[in-house]
Amino acid sequence: MSDVSVSLGANKYGKAENRVVRVIRDTARHEIIDLNVTSQLRGRALIDSYLTGDNALVVATDTQKNTIFAFAKEHGITSPEEFLLLLATHFVGGFDWIEGGLWQAEQYAWERILADGAPHDHSFVRSGPGTRLAAVQVVNGATHVTGGVRDLVVLKTTGSEFSGFPRDGYTTLVETDDRVMATSVTGRWRFAPEAVEAGIDFNGLYEEVTAVLLSTFATVHSLALQQTLFEMGRAAIQARPEIAEVRFAMPNKHHFVYDLSPFGLDNPGEVFYAADRPYGLIEGTITRDGAPAAPDAWLDLPAFV
Amino acid sequence: MSDVSVSLGANKYGKAENRVVRVIRDTARHEIIDLNVTSQLRGRALIDSYLTGDNALVVATDTQKNTIFAFAKEHGITSPEEFLLLLATHFVGGFDWIEGGLWQAEQYAWERILADGAPHDHSFVRSGPGTRLAAVQVVNGATHVTGGVRDLVVLKTTGSEFSGFPRDGYTTLVETDDRVMATSVTGRWRFAPEAVEAGIDFNGLYEEVTAVLLSTFATVHSLALQQTLFEMGRAAIQARPEIAEVRFAMPNKHHFVYDLSPFGLDNPGEVFYAADRPYGLIEGTITRDGAPAAPDAWLDLPAFV
Amino acid sequence: MSDVSVSLGANKYGKAENRVVRVIRDTARHEIIDLNVTSQLRGRALIDSYLTGDNALVVATDTQKNTIFAFAKEHGITSPEEFLLLLATHFVGGFDWIEGGLWQAEQYAWERILADGAPHDHSFVRSGPGTRLAAVQVVNGATHVTGGVRDLVVLKTTGSEFSGFPRDGYTTLVETDDRVMATSVTGRWRFAPEAVEAGIDFNGLYEEVTAVLLSTFATVHSLALQQTLFEMGRAAIQARPEIAEVRFAMPNKHHFVYDLSPFGLDNPGEVFYAADRPYGLIEGTITRDGAPAAPDAWLDLPAFV
Amino acid sequence: MSDVSVSLGANKYGKAENRVVRVIRDTARHEIIDLNVTSQLRGRALIDSYLTGDNALVVATDTQKNTIFAFAKEHGITSPEEFLLLLATHFVGGFDWIEGGLWQAEQYAWERILADGAPHDHSFVRSGPGTRLAAVQVVNGATHVTGGVRDLVVLKTTGSEFSGFPRDGYTTLVETDDRVMATSVTGRWRFAPEAVEAGIDFNGLYEEVTAVLLSTFATVHSLALQQTLFEMGRAAIQARPEIAEVRFAMPNKHHFVYDLSPFGLDNPGEVFYAADRPYGLIEGTITRDGAPAAPDAWLDLPAFV
Repeated sequence: MSDVSVSLGANKYGKAENRVVRVIRDTARHEIIDLNVTSQLRGRALIDSYLTGDNALVVATDTQKNTIFAFAKEHGITSPEEFLLLLATHFVGGFDWIEGGLWQAEQYAWERILADGAPHDHSFVRSGPGTRLAAVQVVNGATHVTGGVRDLVVLKTTGSEFSGFPRDGYTTLVETDDRVMATSVTGRWRFAPEAVEAGIDFNGLYEEVTAVLLSTFATVHSLALQQTLFEMGRAAIQARPEIAEVRFAMPNKHHFVYDLSPFGLDNPGEVFYAADRPYGLIEGTITRDGAPAAPDAWLDLPAFV
Repeated sequence: MSDVSVSLGANKYGKAENRVVRVIRDTARHEIIDLNVTSQLRGRALIDSYLTGDNALVVATDTQKNTIFAFAKEHGITSPEEFLLLLATHFVGGFDWIEGGLWQAEQYAWERILADGAPHDHSFVRSGPGTRLAAVQVVNGATHVTGGVRDLVVLKTTGSEFSGFPRDGYTTLVETDDRVMATSVTGRWRFAPEAVEAGIDFNGLYEEVTAVLLSTFATVHSLALQQTLFEMGRAAIQARPEIAEVRFAMPNKHHFVYDLSPFGLDNPGEVFYAADRPYGLIEGTITRDGAPAAPDAWLDLPAFV
Repeated sequence: MSDVSVSLGANKYGKAENRVVRVIRDTARHEIIDLNVTSQLRGRALIDSYLTGDNALVVATDTQKNTIFAFAKEHGITSPEEFLLLLATHFVGGFDWIEGGLWQAEQYAWERILADGAPHDHSFVRSGPGTRLAAVQVVNGATHVTGGVRDLVVLKTTGSEFSGFPRDGYTTLVETDDRVMATSVTGRWRFAPEAVEAGIDFNGLYEEVTAVLLSTFATVHSLALQQTLFEMGRAAIQARPEIAEVRFAMPNKHHFVYDLSPFGLDNPGEVFYAADRPYGLIEGTITRDGAPAAPDAWLDLPAFV
Repeated sequence: MSDVSVSLGANKYGKAENRVVRVIRDTARHEIIDLNVTSQLRGRALIDSYLTGDNALVVATDTQKNTIFAFAKEHGITSPEEFLLLLATHFVGGFDWIEGGLWQAEQYAWERILADGAPHDHSFVRSGPGTRLAAVQVVNGATHVTGGVRDLVVLKTTGSEFSGFPRDGYTTLVETDDRVMATSVTGRWRFAPEAVEAGIDFNGLYEEVTAVLLSTFATVHSLALQQTLFEMGRAAIQARPEIAEVRFAMPNKHHFVYDLSPFGLDNPGEVFYAADRPYGLIEGTITRDGAPAAPDAWLDLPAFV
């Protein structure tokens, strides 16, 4: 056996799911930013920690954690994208053997509680819909930024068909020109590097893009979830010139018409059973024509989800 | 061993987590009601299924499921409480050996998607905050109704103290007059039987009670989560005469001030680490003075959560 | 509104889910005990923390946490039941206003890893099946101890029938004399107080009872899950004289025969679809004849689950 | 806006999480195979379903589901890898516009229940440790097969150090020469194409590889989790010539020594607090020298997890 030799391939390491909550309390009207931050580093020189356990170049995952929390104070958090950019710059710039990495964040939304008819100064309730995503990737000297959303759960009670599909010996599905269509949207949009360079209102963009995704889901008469997915991506790219590419994963959360005929009842699309598993799973990428591709931006991120 | 004799004690059986989605499509402006319904039956005569496997009196769990879906068509769903009352009446009244049972529902909220500046007719997005709860209990000929909410996540960045507690050899906690307080409220309110009899606007009440819970959390200056819990219960009872009793479970979701002093940074309540476990867990009941107790209403429901 | 008066009813408070891992390293052959411990206290004098936020008698939840970890060192952990008894005695005995409480634990099992053909001295792999449960309750001066298990997932491919049930207008279920039966057993057994007094080998009992539950599930020809549940409880009580009572919750995890007839295929109980929701839910109590009832033992514990 | 043009990039679609349970009942001694199967298809011609909702070439996800269940009967399931290969061949070979796809499975393990001292013929209990993974990928006419495991939770109470790491202004971590090391191993191993061609005993290999992973974790004296990860990959490749490459994701599940000094107690590695978040996250690839790389094999699979 000792004559089998092996090598280390792709790798990274860091600290995952740092739950950092930043309060801005300069005035009596507090603000809150609530993130779940993951930091991971890459560098060819890190190979020794794998091969021999030599940690001389291993910026400890605990140090990465401390940096995240300290930066929340030193620099504040204006948006998850900008906060991750700060971390990326710090680690890649501050340790010459760190060549790159992946920094990710989820942001949880909070709304002010209404009290005595007015939004309260320092009390909040967790709100939705969806959870905001951000990621910054540094690979081969280039920095890539993506935004996104997960678990944006939507449903339409009509305006969705599915028919015209091929039939083989294993096909039993009946064609329909009116069904409930529901999905939980997870999407990521990649920002064009020149737009990042020029500065982006990441928070405003997130609000606009999620609104556009919702309204497109609502207004497109759907012949297939694939078509809806494509139109949602197209709408996002059309809405904001900063976006070069969008990737979506959309489970088709089946709502089956419950068979009430044994009970002498008609069921014209009124009573549905919401199933858990299995579910359809539709994934796709929509790219802006003319925008250069950037596969490195997606390195180690989920392909679609 | 054969000389050891045993008996059957408390029991019930049924079908859990029926995910029924009801669409009202009488006009182009559709409505959607989305429930997770559990039905369970009790009756002394059911003992034979346990002792000998004789199912002659076992209303099949599959039949309970069919009934739930059929009732969604036959009777519609005006509120989860009223829908469960229909089921309870059907099972207890329709099978003379069924003496009682427990029917429970969760309701998931949906909001209309905004498209072209207006709420869409048939497209929706899942919304919060919190998930609505309802339960109907029939025990000894009496019917009890409770409403509630779970996972109503709230946080205040100030207006919370904790001090004055006793110290023993295992006490290290430092007193504080300013902390972040966060919890995920789960609460159930029991309706007075005479109010149920008279008819309750269950949907309007739910909206009002959750708003009152939120505003009370916001405005009470908290000396202990226990105190906040009590005041929230008091406010709910004061807001609505139909409510005889409220039960709460409130995890104290700790937000620890991150120690930034090793980095030469001050942290005056600005950067927090949101911990997962362990967490404080505060539970309590608030009752309206003069309202008769009804322990049967809570049979087999979680004591607080 | 100010004329509505309210009172505090049942309540308790404490620290939940303390993940304490105890290593015994007196010899090179280490042992590991891995618990998730929850401690909650009750006492009439605690009412002031709810009514006025006066914490003078509130043994801080943080102090409860410290005590759990310190006791793991000071007293060790021989079994979850004995560890909880130590905590109960400490809190009820040590603070004269603490009248009772509920202490709960889950225990995660670890097996030694096999290396070079032998169980390793200090390396372990998490194992199952099921998670061990324990609870100690102090109410009105009496101490109650329960053991248990959750998530013991079992399945039999035959030896299960379901027929002879009543049919009404909502019944479509077909009778069967051969089905897959699967469930995830959650059960708790209450120890007779005199057995606790005399001393119980809690660890040995757990091993024996779970083995008896499994073998009974296997060997009983089932006419209903109710019957299997009852026989499993009877077997546990017959196996161990220390057990006065057993409570079970058993979801009927449906495995539906997949309809292969559209594809010209027979399916004589060979290919099943394992469904998630809805599921049957069967709950029951089995008591030893002659053993005094002890409802206080179950206070605030899940009724069955 | 109408002058912005977009295109469809990478995509696939199918049916996820088909929970198929296959019983072999040719003799009284039944066997059970329990899988969670996902099937997804790719093909350039599928673009029309995205662009125009034309489904003429969309093999319905429902048809994919039917095929999975029918194949469980027609072909049986000898191993997850072989079952996925059958599906891949069927879809890629049976529809000339389907150019490739990704088929994935999880397998849940069941052990026979011991009854009357012997393994029972038809009663089983879910067992661990870990969940088996398999995936088959068809890309550009090539077929790639990977096996794997997730959630293999291991811990060692000594034999783990972490020191020698660089210190900067954000470093507070203390060096240690003796700590608890725990992780939940998720790994995938890629089979060399010629080994797949020649036929592999996939089930035997899984047993052997997971045993080797465990014993290597146990016996390597660890200077870093990175080193342990690398040695586990090396051992797997050395154990089985069929394996060309291994990828691991290993969260460092921190067990912190609880500070008992405020209570006058020593804690020489005996009492630990098992933390949830944040956690270290170490990921790496180990490749057999001389084995050709195959990035397509990993297309759309999680990079490491």
